Amino acid sequence: MEQKEALEIVRKQLHDKRYVHTIGVMETAIQLARRFGADEKKAELAAIFHDYAKCRPIREMQEIIERENMPKDLLDHNKELWHAPVGAYLVQEEVGIYDKDILQAIAYHTSGHTEMTLLDKVVWVADYIEPGRQFPGVEQVRELAKQDLDAALLQALKNTITYLLQKNQRVYPLTFHTYNALLKEE
Amino acid sequence: MEQKEALEIVRKQLHDKRYVHTIGVMETAIQLARRFGADEKKAELAAIFHDYAKCRPIREMQEIIERENMPKDLLDHNKELWHAPVGAYLVQEEVGIYDKDILQAIAYHTSGHTEMTLLDKVVWVADYIEPGRQFPGVEQVRELAKQDLDAALLQALKNTITYLLQKNQRVYPLTFHTYNALLKEE
Repeated sequence: MEQKEALEIVRKQLHDKRYVHTIGVMETAIQLARRFGADEKKAELAAIFHDYAKCRPIREMQEIIERENMPKDLLDHNKELWHAPVGAYLVQEEVGIYDKDILQAIAYHTSGHTEMTLLDKVVWVADYIEPGRQFPGVEQVRELAKQDLDAALLQALKNTITYLLQKNQRVYPLTFHTYNALLKEE
Repeated sequence: MEQKEALEIVRKQLHDKRYVHTIGVMETAIQLARRFGADEKKAELAAIFHDYAKCRPIREMQEIIERENMPKDLLDHNKELWHAPVGAYLVQEEVGIYDKDILQAIAYHTSGHTEMTLLDKVVWVADYIEPGRQFPGVEQVRELAKQDLDAALLQALKNTITYLLQKNQRVYPLTFHTYNALLKEE
């Protein structure tokens, strides 16, 4: 699928602000894929569609998680996590993208997982550092991502978990398993 | 078992510094038990024996973890965690304490677990705040423990996890689950 067609599809799914974010993630993912040797076309498509389900009603996401036997613990954790696996499902069902690599990168772009591929990492980090992102710590991750994708991902995970701890919010287990797994890789 | 007899037993198992720490945990655990309505005698004994295995050889602890079918993921994580479940086992085998409440408080005094009893919390927090402890954040936890045991435990867990993240060290999953479970309780 060409970039133009993909963007037209996703444009209809997202609010303006979310669409601008998506463009930023796409451009960043292409850069990172080129820099670290991931498949640029897959990175482009995964990035374009990563937030496909972001603006769907909570109720619809919940129904899909239950009906499609997605991990039940999702429902027990922050709703912000839901759009990632639901998005992968809807991109397959409604857009007709069946590439497993792309769907996986979409499904885990928020939580991470313990055996992340290069493509998964590219999309996860691109989502964190795209030019529109402005929060404490993002600049450090941008700098790391110029040289070392794993180091950027690790720092971003640490920032995310630390932020949740400070806010007294629970941490989705897969997110800290991702952190642990990444340290083990090193 | 009387305090004097228990201390004589544990004295032979520990280096001086660790024994002084044990006295501090014992006194703090008795105070906390009184303050929050836990069983004072059980708190005293669990505290006295909490580090019973601390000075055992790594090899011996590893053999016990494998032989007694303790959680295999222990071996994959920091050795500092091992003495707690191994201690509970040895206190039963060598000292003849069979009280399940006491053994559980010993077994989980480092990791925590997702359904901590009042006694478990008393021993865990006492170990963290006993008068000999001096590290960033301990004073805040001491203050919280004057009023609210759960708040003290939560802050201590947050401090511990944050410290490990800063040091790029893996976090034992049960510790994270304990943090999440405590927030859910609230």
